[in-house]
Amino acid sequence: MASAPKKANGNNADALIFSDDPHHPANHICTLCHQFYGHGWVTGTGGGLSIRKDNHVFIAPSGVQKELMRPTDMFVMDFQTGEYLRRPTSLKPSACTPLFLASFTKRNAGCCIHTHSQWAVLVTLICEQNLQLAPPTSTTPQDWPQNAIFSIKEIEQIKGISRGGVGSTEILEGGRKAGNLGFFDTMEIPIIENTAHEEDLKDTLERAIEAWPECCAVLVRRHGVYVWGKDVKQAKTQAESLDYLFQLAVEMHKMGMKWV
Amino acid sequence: MASAPKKANGNNADALIFSDDPHHPANHICTLCHQFYGHGWVTGTGGGLSIRKDNHVFIAPSGVQKELMRPTDMFVMDFQTGEYLRRPTSLKPSACTPLFLASFTKRNAGCCIHTHSQWAVLVTLICEQNLQLAPPTSTTPQDWPQNAIFSIKEIEQIKGISRGGVGSTEILEGGRKAGNLGFFDTMEIPIIENTAHEEDLKDTLERAIEAWPECCAVLVRRHGVYVWGKDVKQAKTQAESLDYLFQLAVEMHKMGMKWV
Amino acid sequence: MASAPKKANGNNADALIFSDDPHHPANHICTLCHQFYGHGWVTGTGGGLSIRKDNHVFIAPSGVQKELMRPTDMFVMDFQTGEYLRRPTSLKPSACTPLFLASFTKRNAGCCIHTHSQWAVLVTLICEQNLQLAPPTSTTPQDWPQNAIFSIKEIEQIKGISRGGVGSTEILEGGRKAGNLGFFDTMEIPIIENTAHEEDLKDTLERAIEAWPECCAVLVRRHGVYVWGKDVKQAKTQAESLDYLFQLAVEMHKMGMKWV
Amino acid sequence: MASAPKKANGNNADALIFSDDPHHPANHICTLCHQFYGHGWVTGTGGGLSIRKDNHVFIAPSGVQKELMRPTDMFVMDFQTGEYLRRPTSLKPSACTPLFLASFTKRNAGCCIHTHSQWAVLVTLICEQNLQLAPPTSTTPQDWPQNAIFSIKEIEQIKGISRGGVGSTEILEGGRKAGNLGFFDTMEIPIIENTAHEEDLKDTLERAIEAWPECCAVLVRRHGVYVWGKDVKQAKTQAESLDYLFQLAVEMHKMGMKWV
Repeated sequence: MASAPKKANGNNADALIFSDDPHHPANHICTLCHQFYGHGWVTGTGGGLSIRKDNHVFIAPSGVQKELMRPTDMFVMDFQTGEYLRRPTSLKPSACTPLFLASFTKRNAGCCIHTHSQWAVLVTLICEQNLQLAPPTSTTPQDWPQNAIFSIKEIEQIKGISRGGVGSTEILEGGRKAGNLGFFDTMEIPIIENTAHEEDLKDTLERAIEAWPECCAVLVRRHGVYVWGKDVKQAKTQAESLDYLFQLAVEMHKMGMKWV
Repeated sequence: MASAPKKANGNNADALIFSDDPHHPANHICTLCHQFYGHGWVTGTGGGLSIRKDNHVFIAPSGVQKELMRPTDMFVMDFQTGEYLRRPTSLKPSACTPLFLASFTKRNAGCCIHTHSQWAVLVTLICEQNLQLAPPTSTTPQDWPQNAIFSIKEIEQIKGISRGGVGSTEILEGGRKAGNLGFFDTMEIPIIENTAHEEDLKDTLERAIEAWPECCAVLVRRHGVYVWGKDVKQAKTQAESLDYLFQLAVEMHKMGMKWV
Repeated sequence: MASAPKKANGNNADALIFSDDPHHPANHICTLCHQFYGHGWVTGTGGGLSIRKDNHVFIAPSGVQKELMRPTDMFVMDFQTGEYLRRPTSLKPSACTPLFLASFTKRNAGCCIHTHSQWAVLVTLICEQNLQLAPPTSTTPQDWPQNAIFSIKEIEQIKGISRGGVGSTEILEGGRKAGNLGFFDTMEIPIIENTAHEEDLKDTLERAIEAWPECCAVLVRRHGVYVWGKDVKQAKTQAESLDYLFQLAVEMHKMGMKWV
Repeated sequence: MASAPKKANGNNADALIFSDDPHHPANHICTLCHQFYGHGWVTGTGGGLSIRKDNHVFIAPSGVQKELMRPTDMFVMDFQTGEYLRRPTSLKPSACTPLFLASFTKRNAGCCIHTHSQWAVLVTLICEQNLQLAPPTSTTPQDWPQNAIFSIKEIEQIKGISRGGVGSTEILEGGRKAGNLGFFDTMEIPIIENTAHEEDLKDTLERAIEAWPECCAVLVRRHGVYVWGKDVKQAKTQAESLDYLFQLAVEMHKMGMKWV
């Protein structure tokens, strides 16, 4: 994690991002960006990350090398008004901003992660070609195209995914999390089509969030995935579990195995 | 490794986990969890690890990000009574606990590792589809289904696997370990079916351990693997050798090669 | 990064490479070489890297283990005269030197990266066999063989590649970079045939640069790729985005998917 | 690298392994073992490494976790007499010892590396099945079976492999190393059959070394590879280049491409 001066410089905007606490969002986003670079999720300045804390939204900027990310690169927005409380003059705000905000406003998420993971992209390509079609199920919206759903079931890692997006973490008897999917559940993630400009995904992303009240993620065809959670831990561990499932699904597909 | 205060805080339970010795189980489990995260074995809080030392069983908790694991997260159980000597109030005990204990009681193991390695999962999927059937051999129990055995032979890394589970490490003339499989031996690992709740695997895991007296591991279909050894070193190096063999087996299968 | 003495030793040549600034080219090349080794781009002393700063060209030498690269290994050339200002006596200049210079003189690049990435090599092998032929497009030179073009479109990461080689980074409304390719654009990278001696690639590389005024990279069949940018950041992030696209293209090809 | 006391303890045997010089063989072997573990070359205590310096042969022991290797684990042998000058009482000498010595005595090598790399194993499996047969060439011994040769040509990384085993590093005009293979040369590596006990490979390994005077490596079927060089740098960079070529060859084979 980047080192920070012990004291903020008196500037109100900078006070928002200087902290000795590694879990302060401005520090935490940097640590996570470094880790995600190692996973291949944010190659070549791609991908992004936002944390909402109380009324402040912290957002990694556009076009920054994520493995070099520092707290001073951070944008901070007022969640109520949508105005920037801190805006580094040499940097551009992330085009993902309206998409991060959609998960915060519509799902009460506290953290949203956007990756360009190749496994996510490959899963959307396999679905695009109708090579692995989702079966009609009770949770699929009536009007959702079959090739726009990634479905998988009976893989243990599915139990790492919450039911209802930003689910409870209460542990029921037997160790199963109340709000999480079970091994025999079918996990479904909607896929939306990509657009020329990332911010134009906002409407379809919001529609997907509304149509799939149980989802904690939306895949973007030929692009990547958005994953959210009530806090950093839930968003990050769900992003890991989903990426694991995407990778496994690609390997299964290569060997002629069905996902459901 | 997480840093530890020089002195325990006087609380008996905490005294169980504070040590300057990197090989103290509370420290060792953390080091191993960090390493296993790098291997992709414990993604998204999946997988787990337990070390038994004398009458104390140290267990990584449920739902913890393994790369952030700290000694203070540790559960400690009395091996004789099964009572918790230390139980962090904010955490839940691992659902793997009865499975770890099965290897300790039935095989006298000193360490048990549970991974969600994708190679382990893929091997169970290939077997499920009868794509690579195990040949009937003298060591296969009569009533064990053919698609519930992973078999491989004539790969050098098989020599890293002990015969009889928690085998001797005595070195015979020629460098071959007395208790380990040889190059021309067929390594067989039983596969049990997954259940909705991890702790419900206990009965079938115990049955597999009894039916396969030579095994040092049990695969769980669509889930992962449990591997044990007489101590951390044997459990860990066997987990590595098995993961190597699972990965090689998947690559062989993709190229149309038989495992036995 | 390798540590450097606080003061240069009075030798003019050495003064060129000793600096406390991590962004000084002599330090920066070392940091990048270490990182690229981790990516598998410069295995076994392969690959290379050059930074041009003002009238000085800094070049990693031939035959050096890139993960051990130190500032004292650096060659420094006068950009105008082509004479070496610093030439370590125990080392040989990189055979890539005329190729790095081609990007500096013909495209005004500030940094050029050469990798032996297996994904780059595999993409050239797939094209060689006409397994994925480029479609005729308006930007393809009339006389360029169809199996000597790598083309891909409608993958989000394409937006990480500049249009016109060393493009502007001005951000247009909507967050799209003025000088970068868009999602619906077809990215084309020319492929030149390898030669026995690396420096003999100079003429065909220069011809490719001239024939493809939009390209920021040239693939070398069965060898690797040269990628440049106006500065280190653009060269490095484009090298990452291209490598991502090469890897994805190989995975797509394995699953029978078309690139365009 | 493991830390070492500033002074040896007066014991002659221990004086052989304590040094502040990171390039002292006892330290260098540890650094390399840690690095090779990261490459997946020495998983589960597999693989090994030896450095010969003057009349002393330093050898990593049998059954040690390579990522934890320390100088005090080292065996030291007198090269002339074959007697151990230092032999840790709690450890066993490596079964690879006679094979390392074969490269030292028959090729004047200064370092020999043995890996269990999966790419090496997969290449021997592909050859075993006659799926990629070597063409008869002038350098192939008359009596060598066609499925016991790994051949590849026209891949740039071949230029990282020396001609004649422990070749010259003199650089000819044009940057090509005098003693190294050229791009249009066919690289051939002999494959010997595995045996139950590693030390029993000695005779066939020696025969391969004699039959293939140009080789710097011998593959062992279903086991791994031995690679040597005149010093650590040449052995290590050749091991990297070979592993690169093995991996590329496997990927080429998966896509139906011929190696020669």
